[in-house]
Amino acid sequence: MAPVKIPDIVVGRLPLYLRALEIMVDDNREITSSQELGDRLGISSAQIRKDLSQFGEFGKQGTGYNVSFLVKKLKEILHVNKTWPMVLVGVGDLGRAVADYGGFTPRGFKVETVYDSDPQKIGKQVGTFTIRDASRLGDDLAKNGIKIVMLAVPTASAQDVADRVIKAGVTAILCYSSTSISAPSKVHVEYIDPVLHLQRMTYYMR
Amino acid sequence: MAPVKIPDIVVGRLPLYLRALEIMVDDNREITSSQELGDRLGISSAQIRKDLSQFGEFGKQGTGYNVSFLVKKLKEILHVNKTWPMVLVGVGDLGRAVADYGGFTPRGFKVETVYDSDPQKIGKQVGTFTIRDASRLGDDLAKNGIKIVMLAVPTASAQDVADRVIKAGVTAILCYSSTSISAPSKVHVEYIDPVLHLQRMTYYMR
Repeated sequence: MAPVKIPDIVVGRLPLYLRALEIMVDDNREITSSQELGDRLGISSAQIRKDLSQFGEFGKQGTGYNVSFLVKKLKEILHVNKTWPMVLVGVGDLGRAVADYGGFTPRGFKVETVYDSDPQKIGKQVGTFTIRDASRLGDDLAKNGIKIVMLAVPTASAQDVADRVIKAGVTAILCYSSTSISAPSKVHVEYIDPVLHLQRMTYYMR
Repeated sequence: MAPVKIPDIVVGRLPLYLRALEIMVDDNREITSSQELGDRLGISSAQIRKDLSQFGEFGKQGTGYNVSFLVKKLKEILHVNKTWPMVLVGVGDLGRAVADYGGFTPRGFKVETVYDSDPQKIGKQVGTFTIRDASRLGDDLAKNGIKIVMLAVPTASAQDVADRVIKAGVTAILCYSSTSISAPSKVHVEYIDPVLHLQRMTYYMR
């Protein structure tokens, strides 16, 4: 792909661009500009042009960006021009909402299986899934070559489950538990923690 | 507070530091080091020292950081040495999980009221809350001086609800809907969208 290392902060903005562009596709929009994208995202148009130019020439001076083409390119760059299978571990209130979430499939991800360690839950249905015994996690992941796990387990067991899935070859963990996970540097960990976002905003508020 | 503008990316890491330190407090830890924090967070110790030094001298060379003191300072910096009242709009599956989430109160936030526009839901209970009519949102927010709103409404109505709450004086929106919101620059908007995080990881994966 790109010969130079792209800063993480730039990479972090690409999914925002893709999301905004996909909404434009749904609205049958054919052309957009860095100005319009910037207005929608609260990011300067210069920043958007600079970010995108690190990956190639996607727009023409004066005519803007072709929406579908840019969507296609961003999907390639983010490797979501395919569908990534994932599993979910932990089916409490939050896990249930995650399992039912309809927004993964159109954007490159699919929950294949859900797990819990609670004997009361194993074998029960949640949405279209039958909850599997979390003790099978390691074997299942290795067998199916799954690289992405979403954790919605109690805080106290997050690290233990993370260690097990990493051992089974997982390289990306999306952690809904309110704790930090230690992982080897080759494993990517992202957190869904609403309080982190809230505190990022209150810093600026009085 | 600090005389120079702190980069957003530094501000964004402070809640991560606070979260890790609060877990140490729960474990009755008194002293930590930038090395230990860094190992837990996957951030270099040099980065942590540099970030924290922008706000003052919190640790001593050789003896490390006093955990409780650093927690206190970070809470002051992030303005969560008080409790921020919030409201939640939208009580679908996801909103229900957000309403029930026990992790806000210990970390500086409290859901005061939940709203929905569905006549079937208004007046019903969700957890300890009685769902209020979303048409009252503007009046309620202004009357109670609430500055933070969490949105878990359908994508198509997110902008409309955002416009209304901003008009009522809200300056921080945590958006669980998978769309971007246009807001004046004085309003902070953060997104909880698992796919944004997943795509940030697949960028690095083959």
